[in-house]
Amino acid sequence: MRFLRNRFSGLKPYHSAYLTEGTILNSNESPYGAPQELMNYMKENVGQLLVNRYPDTDSTKLIEAISKAYDVKCENVSCGVGSDELIDCILASVLDEDDKVLIPHPSFSMYSEFTLLNSGLGIKVPLKEDFTYDVEAMKAVVEKEQPKVVFICNPNNPTGCVMAQEDIEAILKLSNGLVIVDEAYEDFASESISVIPLIHQYDNLIVLRTFSKAYALAGARVGYAIAGKELIDLIDAVKPPYNLNLFSQMVATWAIEHKEVFRANAKKIISQRAYVVESLKSLGFKTYSSEANFIWVELPDGYFEALRERKIYIRQMAVENKNYYRITIGSPEENEILLTALKELSV
Amino acid sequence: MRFLRNRFSGLKPYHSAYLTEGTILNSNESPYGAPQELMNYMKENVGQLLVNRYPDTDSTKLIEAISKAYDVKCENVSCGVGSDELIDCILASVLDEDDKVLIPHPSFSMYSEFTLLNSGLGIKVPLKEDFTYDVEAMKAVVEKEQPKVVFICNPNNPTGCVMAQEDIEAILKLSNGLVIVDEAYEDFASESISVIPLIHQYDNLIVLRTFSKAYALAGARVGYAIAGKELIDLIDAVKPPYNLNLFSQMVATWAIEHKEVFRANAKKIISQRAYVVESLKSLGFKTYSSEANFIWVELPDGYFEALRERKIYIRQMAVENKNYYRITIGSPEENEILLTALKELSV
Repeated sequence: MRFLRNRFSGLKPYHSAYLTEGTILNSNESPYGAPQELMNYMKENVGQLLVNRYPDTDSTKLIEAISKAYDVKCENVSCGVGSDELIDCILASVLDEDDKVLIPHPSFSMYSEFTLLNSGLGIKVPLKEDFTYDVEAMKAVVEKEQPKVVFICNPNNPTGCVMAQEDIEAILKLSNGLVIVDEAYEDFASESISVIPLIHQYDNLIVLRTFSKAYALAGARVGYAIAGKELIDLIDAVKPPYNLNLFSQMVATWAIEHKEVFRANAKKIISQRAYVVESLKSLGFKTYSSEANFIWVELPDGYFEALRERKIYIRQMAVENKNYYRITIGSPEENEILLTALKELSV
Repeated sequence: MRFLRNRFSGLKPYHSAYLTEGTILNSNESPYGAPQELMNYMKENVGQLLVNRYPDTDSTKLIEAISKAYDVKCENVSCGVGSDELIDCILASVLDEDDKVLIPHPSFSMYSEFTLLNSGLGIKVPLKEDFTYDVEAMKAVVEKEQPKVVFICNPNNPTGCVMAQEDIEAILKLSNGLVIVDEAYEDFASESISVIPLIHQYDNLIVLRTFSKAYALAGARVGYAIAGKELIDLIDAVKPPYNLNLFSQMVATWAIEHKEVFRANAKKIISQRAYVVESLKSLGFKTYSSEANFIWVELPDGYFEALRERKIYIRQMAVENKNYYRITIGSPEENEILLTALKELSV
């Protein structure tokens, strides 16, 4: 492309089909939809919204609700267009050209993407063979390279593995740079593994959360960062003004004020996850331990395409030239459709 | 701030009060609110939205509606979180460190802001003393410096001046880099001054438009770029996926499909602008010719604060240490409140 920075020569315009039909298990979304109460709330209140005015640039009500839910101060929270925007803001605020960023591999693709876009250099640290975190390797890279930013996705997308709090703390202590713990899927862990309480103890820790998974609001695009005030200021110094539209602010505020509704759905997903894993194992497929709303699976060649033909959509991801599959845990009905298809394919 | 790039040492966390009461004439918003039909449409359709799914990353329906409205192809359009996001994407895609960007002064503050954030160097070209574009000075800078990007805000925010099409074309021809014509306020020009038809002729032209002004949807945060396919690809290569939430896609699609509703409101603003300008002149205040939904005015010291005490909010902006004021044209009632207050203050 003419005009494009040489540094970005590998980039292509990103497009992706918008799936609305079939069994959609490729984007780690909630299968449950927004609760009827939330839809009613929207219908009742949309008429009073000042849509002709710019939204509250500080997302004040939403931040108040989040700070209440996690027992932190408002100054400890910043909201973005998905946690994506916050990842971008953090990297933009700290990275000079060719600064290093530690990224586990495989992990959420946007860590590498935004590192490239912010002129940083990603240092990929592979997971172990069993797709769990290689904490010793990560610590060694932190000590040797002192990256400006370290990403820890916990539970990890796409493998579902978790890092123990003591290991996260060891990395926080070793690192002179920022450590971002992305807890997008934390609501699906069997027991709470959130490190939000540690923000008072470590002034280089930023925790990211999202409304796109357990809160079933991927369509609204809202994420948030929780950290010490100094790091929230860092984000707010580079964050575009009026980033969050007023509809998204409204629904996210309602959602966090009604988190018990979503907690109940997360519990159903956790129990379905165990069922799907057991079923896949009994069909002879290799799966990996997951604490998220998806599982990391090995499937024979051709299964991905055969499922797609049946309008069952899962994610295919290559790691060192071998294909693996990330399958979102759906509703019980969706999971049965998947399992039935896999059973038919494997006979 | 610790961790912040040295380059950004001047940045502070941005916060701003969310005004919902009083006479709000400081943000160039539409005074008319969203039409009742749009609110009804939202109420009827919000229940069918797949809020638990990520939105269409390509904003397909919205782009189809925009392309229809302007008689261009879908491949000539890209949508963003306000035109702000598109400005950011364009600069991000082309600027290497210290690359030059031509920015008229005064003009929309985000041009400088995003140039800084994308490690570029802004070259400010002052407007003439009467606050119209200094086309000769801009052409001289283009020839001498060949900036990677040239901004032309048309009509210009905050002064309301316009650049003639032949002057824009002269700059397009001289420039080896991109020329961005920001038409956020074009709907308020007495006659159409849009250069959208020129995108077929100039492969370095990007036109920006927004739903935040004439379409009365500032709260939804939607902007769009119209350009040749190659330049849209450039934007789409760096634009974050799923940038536009599904509520905003929905209301913006409705709005552009009903543009006659908003056109009628723009006409009222144009006629009110003439009335407010005449009234200010007869009160003895110096105003400048404006083709936008705001006017650029000189006021005595203390007026800004006195208006604020009466909950009348206008924008104060310093140019070379002298204060000027940008006043949005409101509804007839709001304009009377402003004029009455100014009359009282000036006796």
